[in-house]
Amino acid sequence: MAEAKHEHTHREQRKKYTFNKLKGFGEEIVEEIEKSKVPVLKIPSRGTGNIVYDPDKRYYILGDRKGKRSLGNVKQIRKLGQMVYTANFCKDLVLRDKTATIREMYYISEGWGIEFNTQQESNTVGEDLEVALGVTREDLGLMPEEDGASVYGDITLLDGEFEINAMKAGKSGYTISPTIDQVELLDCNAEFVLAVETMGMFHRLVQENAFKRYNCLIVGLKGQAARATRRFIKRVNEELGLPVYICNDGDPWGFHIAQVIISGSAKLAHVNHELATPNAKFLGVTASDIIEYELPTDPLKDIDVLRLKELSKDPRYKTDFWQTEIKKMLKIGKKAEQQSFSKYGLEYVVDTYFPEKLGL
Amino acid sequence: MAEAKHEHTHREQRKKYTFNKLKGFGEEIVEEIEKSKVPVLKIPSRGTGNIVYDPDKRYYILGDRKGKRSLGNVKQIRKLGQMVYTANFCKDLVLRDKTATIREMYYISEGWGIEFNTQQESNTVGEDLEVALGVTREDLGLMPEEDGASVYGDITLLDGEFEINAMKAGKSGYTISPTIDQVELLDCNAEFVLAVETMGMFHRLVQENAFKRYNCLIVGLKGQAARATRRFIKRVNEELGLPVYICNDGDPWGFHIAQVIISGSAKLAHVNHELATPNAKFLGVTASDIIEYELPTDPLKDIDVLRLKELSKDPRYKTDFWQTEIKKMLKIGKKAEQQSFSKYGLEYVVDTYFPEKLGL
Repeated sequence: MAEAKHEHTHREQRKKYTFNKLKGFGEEIVEEIEKSKVPVLKIPSRGTGNIVYDPDKRYYILGDRKGKRSLGNVKQIRKLGQMVYTANFCKDLVLRDKTATIREMYYISEGWGIEFNTQQESNTVGEDLEVALGVTREDLGLMPEEDGASVYGDITLLDGEFEINAMKAGKSGYTISPTIDQVELLDCNAEFVLAVETMGMFHRLVQENAFKRYNCLIVGLKGQAARATRRFIKRVNEELGLPVYICNDGDPWGFHIAQVIISGSAKLAHVNHELATPNAKFLGVTASDIIEYELPTDPLKDIDVLRLKELSKDPRYKTDFWQTEIKKMLKIGKKAEQQSFSKYGLEYVVDTYFPEKLGL
Repeated sequence: MAEAKHEHTHREQRKKYTFNKLKGFGEEIVEEIEKSKVPVLKIPSRGTGNIVYDPDKRYYILGDRKGKRSLGNVKQIRKLGQMVYTANFCKDLVLRDKTATIREMYYISEGWGIEFNTQQESNTVGEDLEVALGVTREDLGLMPEEDGASVYGDITLLDGEFEINAMKAGKSGYTISPTIDQVELLDCNAEFVLAVETMGMFHRLVQENAFKRYNCLIVGLKGQAARATRRFIKRVNEELGLPVYICNDGDPWGFHIAQVIISGSAKLAHVNHELATPNAKFLGVTASDIIEYELPTDPLKDIDVLRLKELSKDPRYKTDFWQTEIKKMLKIGKKAEQQSFSKYGLEYVVDTYFPEKLGL
């Protein structure tokens, strides 16, 4: 852990961009007022009718439909006022290199006179601002509560004033904080990323030296991937050119944890260009794996069957691979956890399964 | 991050102790058989009738009642057989410096012929072994899935072959892994521990440099504290002599998260001597804080009221402090989150609340 000699290029660029966006947002409103016009904002609509799957980009994006918010509309004054207050609060955060949780912002609004009545209300305004300005909530300094995934392997990051190598940060690795875009990716000797759903599998891979044997980064997703995790995976894939492979439980929920990393979610269509990693690959556990490796299974529950049928109609699952695997799982009526490989001993998954699937 | 020059004294001591316990367990059974006797095990009972609160120790312990498990009893053969297999598996883990998740052990038992039918069954055998041998499940190499808390501040640990300073491990700090007893506490310049319930508050304290200003370690509990977190807090309190203060949400759930760290849980009475930190102090948010700091509140729900009444009868809450605070909360009928201090601005909690409560 030497004192950092590197600069925060990535962070500074994003900070400048965000600050200018916020400044522009305010100036536009002031200009309208100075022209004695009623300020009106045009914001891309986030309604389900305006969320479209882009087959070229391979993730959901927002369509062309825009909604108007006018300070001349009595119903919209409160929300627009909250947006302006929030933007001002965020400008302050960005200038002072600070962040606030969305919960803290909710409480801070008590001083505004037009405070948020519910957490949901403040979350919506945060997302409105994201879509209006085309920057992420995190760039605005607004953070979720939860940390992201754990990373283990030979990557060196600049986090604040410290250089950190994720192979020397403890058995649980380096924790991706919500402020991952304030971190520089300095150096990486790994050749690909292996992301797994559970910390049980993460610790297995660390313990069996998979990071050395495969020369990869190990990412422990901790279930549904946090926004920070998705951002980290995208950056590692695009900035460093590392292929990404995902291994989850062999059930519709494991499939979808992978799919949201790959193709983004519909709800966050307005920021998928920052979060989705369309080149990431789902490695397993597939229905074919369950058969081929004779894994211990549980029968599919009604809710699993329902979910699999939903997924089969989702545009993100239109490929032959997914259609085949979903049909196969419905046919065998079984699911399996990623840790079920330990039926063959603790080391099997690292000695046999991953090398076979990765073609190592 | 220099290469470690220190030895794993703590880890090696525990390893030796555990190995001898496991060896003794097997030898006892073999001796009985060689004497042509039917092996019988006497295990302290973990039934509710044998869980007693020890006012001197200030946590729950097991009483004197013991249960017999006999290989001559048809009903007990299966469970006792599983215990022997598990002990043998654990001996192997300890010898090879490995760990397994309790989920992996469940799947591994498929090869035993007397496999576990449910995860619950394997968990129970793990706990039986804990109580029979007087060592923790983690010492046996059996790990839960989840990682522990995050730690930030000037403590240096030896984790595997690396020395890690928890002020230089990233914005989210050092993550306490389930294997915390394999870690040595090398050096610490902090004067006390400040543990908080949410990662939102953790990041606030890090961002406002509370670790420097108060000269403390910041621990982010992430809700109910994992066993590894409780073990870490106990070790820091007892090995390094650091006072521990806990600040949670001001509601019965926040109270109890603190209380389990302080006095242990009834369910784990057999390992509370390894987990409880009776000298740790609950700092807030108290009902008195809610009044004094005029915090934004939510009304108590029926379930909150019910839980507060339960707590008031619990032996762990018999002190004047708790009785007064529980009564006061019931009287005002309100609760408050720890992040609600941000009503007064993001910095208030660090500039004003903590210094006042800690007498700094």
